[in-house]
Amino acid sequence: MRTPEVRDYVVDKLDRILNPKSVAVIGASREKGKIGHSVVDNLKGEFPGEVYPINPNAERILGFKAYSTVNEVPDPVDLAIVVVPAKIVPSVIDDCVEKDVGGIVIITSGFSEVGNEELEDRIVKKCREAKIPMIGPNVVGVVSTFNNLNASFIGEPPIPGKISLVTQSGALGIALSSWTRMKQIGLSSLESIGNMADVGFNEVIKYLAEQDDNTEVIALYLEGLKAGREFVEICKEASKNTPIVTLKAGRSQRGKAATQSHTGSLAGSMEIYKAGFRQSGVIQVADLEALFNISLALAHQPPMKGDNVLVITNGGGAGILSSDAAEKYGIPLRETPQDLKKKMRDYMPDFGSAHNPVDITGQAREENYKGAIRDALNSPNVDGVAVLWCHTAFTDAKELAKMIYEATEEAEGSNKPVAVTFIGGESAEEGTTWLKKKGIPAYDTPEKTMAALGALRDYGRFLERK
Amino acid sequence: MRTPEVRDYVVDKLDRILNPKSVAVIGASREKGKIGHSVVDNLKGEFPGEVYPINPNAERILGFKAYSTVNEVPDPVDLAIVVVPAKIVPSVIDDCVEKDVGGIVIITSGFSEVGNEELEDRIVKKCREAKIPMIGPNVVGVVSTFNNLNASFIGEPPIPGKISLVTQSGALGIALSSWTRMKQIGLSSLESIGNMADVGFNEVIKYLAEQDDNTEVIALYLEGLKAGREFVEICKEASKNTPIVTLKAGRSQRGKAATQSHTGSLAGSMEIYKAGFRQSGVIQVADLEALFNISLALAHQPPMKGDNVLVITNGGGAGILSSDAAEKYGIPLRETPQDLKKKMRDYMPDFGSAHNPVDITGQAREENYKGAIRDALNSPNVDGVAVLWCHTAFTDAKELAKMIYEATEEAEGSNKPVAVTFIGGESAEEGTTWLKKKGIPAYDTPEKTMAALGALRDYGRFLERK
Repeated sequence: MRTPEVRDYVVDKLDRILNPKSVAVIGASREKGKIGHSVVDNLKGEFPGEVYPINPNAERILGFKAYSTVNEVPDPVDLAIVVVPAKIVPSVIDDCVEKDVGGIVIITSGFSEVGNEELEDRIVKKCREAKIPMIGPNVVGVVSTFNNLNASFIGEPPIPGKISLVTQSGALGIALSSWTRMKQIGLSSLESIGNMADVGFNEVIKYLAEQDDNTEVIALYLEGLKAGREFVEICKEASKNTPIVTLKAGRSQRGKAATQSHTGSLAGSMEIYKAGFRQSGVIQVADLEALFNISLALAHQPPMKGDNVLVITNGGGAGILSSDAAEKYGIPLRETPQDLKKKMRDYMPDFGSAHNPVDITGQAREENYKGAIRDALNSPNVDGVAVLWCHTAFTDAKELAKMIYEATEEAEGSNKPVAVTFIGGESAEEGTTWLKKKGIPAYDTPEKTMAALGALRDYGRFLERK
Repeated sequence: MRTPEVRDYVVDKLDRILNPKSVAVIGASREKGKIGHSVVDNLKGEFPGEVYPINPNAERILGFKAYSTVNEVPDPVDLAIVVVPAKIVPSVIDDCVEKDVGGIVIITSGFSEVGNEELEDRIVKKCREAKIPMIGPNVVGVVSTFNNLNASFIGEPPIPGKISLVTQSGALGIALSSWTRMKQIGLSSLESIGNMADVGFNEVIKYLAEQDDNTEVIALYLEGLKAGREFVEICKEASKNTPIVTLKAGRSQRGKAATQSHTGSLAGSMEIYKAGFRQSGVIQVADLEALFNISLALAHQPPMKGDNVLVITNGGGAGILSSDAAEKYGIPLRETPQDLKKKMRDYMPDFGSAHNPVDITGQAREENYKGAIRDALNSPNVDGVAVLWCHTAFTDAKELAKMIYEATEEAEGSNKPVAVTFIGGESAEEGTTWLKKKGIPAYDTPEKTMAALGALRDYGRFLERK
C-alpha cells in the first residue's frame, strides 16, 4: 500500500505515541523471555503514566492489573503496543479502533517483509479509516528518554540526549541503543519504524522537527522510502531547524536486493537518493559509526559559517592526516590567517610551526592548547577549529579536555564549531568521554574530526542557501 | 643526503639495535620528566641485558652505574641511544664510532626537520664511514616486545603481538602504542624512524621480513620515501611472506606541504605511490584506525583464495550494510552456493533468509551461528566468512564469541579467513576483545569487517600473481 501525502492527524497523534499518559500492551505475558513480558517490564519503574497489560488469561502481570481486551480498560489509552501473533493482529486492531486509542505500535512480524502484504494492507486500512496512526509492523518499539518511556523490548535503553534515531531495522535499533549508551552518546528518542506500513520517515521527521523540543538532530537508518517526493519537501523544511543525518543502506547492487528481502522496501536508484538528500539538506554518511559521530557534532556545535578551519596539533603526523581528511570532506585547509601567525607563536617553542596545521609540538602543555584555541576562535578569519592531541608524557588528557572546554567557554560569543581528536589509550578515551558530555565532539582519529567539521560546514552551506 | 641502495650491513646490524645484549643511554638523566630519565627507566625491569647510563655528572642513575662517555663502558655496547642536545650529537657519535657500538638511535631533534641539514649530514657521514646503522634523528626510540626491550620514552609500551609498527612520526608512535594497548592489539616491535637520515623504511622492512620471526605483519605510517624504487623491490620480496599495510600521509595538496615541514620528506605524487604500493603488494589504508584493523586481520587470518564471501547475520540491516561495504572493498557478494542453501536452513526459523547475506534472524542462538559458520567454512564454494551480530536479549556476546571460535577450530583444515562484527554495548565489546585475543579479527561495524576481508582478498590476489 503506497503511503499518501503526509497526513496531519498522524503527525499530531504521534505525540500520544511518544508522550503517552497511558500504555496498553496487547499480548502482555507473565513469561520471562517473551517480548510481551519485556515490554511490560520496560514500562515498569520510570514511566510515570498508566500501564495496562492485555491478556485474557492473567489477573496481574508484573504488578499491573491485566485486562482481557483493550476495550475493558476503564480509562483512555494513548498508546497501544501490539505483540500478539500476526494472524490475531487484525482483530486486536478492531478492538483498538473501538477503544479509539491514540496510536498503535505493532511489534509483531510476519507481514509484508515475508510476503504477507494482504494481511498488512487489511490492518493499515482499518487504522487509516479510524485515523489512528500505526507504527510498524515488524519493529522493536519506541523510546522517549525525556518522557521516561521505553515502550519496546530494548533491554539497554539509550541515555538521554539530543539525537533522535529513526530506524527501519529493529535489530540495529536494539544494538545501537547499547552502542550509544556505551559511547555516552545520548538520544532523545528512538523510533523503530520497520515495514512503515502506515507511519513512515516523513511523519516522524515532521513530528520531531516541529513538536519535539528535545530533539536537536534526527539520525536515520534508511533502507528505502515509500514517498520520496514528500520526503524531500519535509526534510527541506525540517532541516532549517533540525539537521538530519542519514545512513542510506542498500547503496550497492547486492545491498539493494537485500533491502527487498528485509523490510520489503525498494532501495531505488542511489543517484536519485543522493540528489534528494542534497536538495533537502540531509547529510549522508557512509557507515554506522559516522551516523553517530556526525550527529553528535551537529547536536552540540553551531553550523560552520565559512571554510576556514584552523588545525591545532601537538604532532606533525596527526596534522598531516587531518590535512588529508580535510580535503576528503570538502574543507580547503588554508594558510594560517596573518593575525594569528604571531599569536600562535606564543603557544609553541621555537621549533613549532605556525603554518596550518599549527604544530605547537610535543612540548605543548594544556595551557598552550587553551590559549591557541581561544585566540583562533576569536579571530575573524577563522570559522572553525580542529584540536588534535597525541598522547604524551607531559600532558594529561583529562586536564587538557578541561582546558579545551574553558577555551570554548571564554570564546563563547564567537559561535564557531570545535571538534577534537585524542589519539592514545585509556586516558585519551576518558578525555574524549568527558568532552562529549560537555558537548564538544571528540574522536580517536583526525579523520573522524574532519568528517564532523565537514558536516558542520555542509549544514552551514545548506542554511546559507535558504 | 640521499639514501643509497639498501646496504646489507645495515640490515644485519639492525638485530643489534632491536635485540641487543647491552644498551647505552647517552644523555641519561637523574631528573624525572627528562627524556634521558624516561629511557633509562623504561630499560629497568624487564630488559634482561646490560644498561649503561652515560652522564659525566652522575655516579648512578636509577640503580645503574653511570659512565662519563660510552668509551668508558668496559663491555661491548650493542645499542647506543642518544638523547643529548643536537649540537653535541656529532662528538657523541665520534665516541660511538670509537667504541664500535652495534647501532645508534638518535632521539634528539633539531636537524633536517628544522632546516639543519648540514648537522644531520655530518652525523650520517660518520655513521656510514664506520658502517654503524643509525635510526633517526628526531625519534622516540625503538621497542621490541619479544626481546623485552623498550629503548624509547614511550610510557605505555605496546603489548606483545604479531604486528610491527614502523612510523615516521614519533608522536604518533607514542599515541598509537597506548591506543593498540587499549584495543588489545599486540605489536612485535615499534620502530620510530623520524628523519630517516640513515636507516629508512627499506632496511627496517627487509630486516623484519627476513630476520624477525615474531613479526607477521608490517604496518607503516609513511609520509615520504627517500629511495622509492628500492622500496618497491624490497616490499615485493618481503610481501611474499609478510604482508605490509601502509597509511600514506600527505595525500592531499595541503597534507603534502605539511609533510615537508614535518620530517622534511617529499610526499611525492600520490599516483606514483599508489602504483608502487600495488606493484609491491603493499596494502594501502585510509586512516589510522584501518591501519591496525587491517593489520590485525592479516596477522591472524589466512589470505583469501577466492572472491566468495558468505555473510551470516542475525539482522537484515547489518547484512545490507555489509553488502554495501563488500562492493566498496572489491568483494562481489554472490548468491549463497547451492550446497549451502539447504544446510543454512537448519540454523534459522522459517522466516529467515538463506540468500547471501544469510539472515538467521534475531531468534538465532549461539549454536545456530556455530553450525552455520562451520558449514560455510567447510563448503568448497566459500572462500571466507563474515559473521555479523546485532545485540539481542536472547544471545550472550561472550558465549557467541566462544561458539565462533569453536566453529573455526572445527573447520580448521579449511584455511579460510573469518572476520566478525558485534554491534552493541559493553558486552559486545568484551566479545570482540575475546575474539581478537583468539586471533579472530572482530570489529564494531560491518564496514570494518568487510574492509578486513577485502584486504585479505587483496593479499591473496598478490600472492596468486607471484
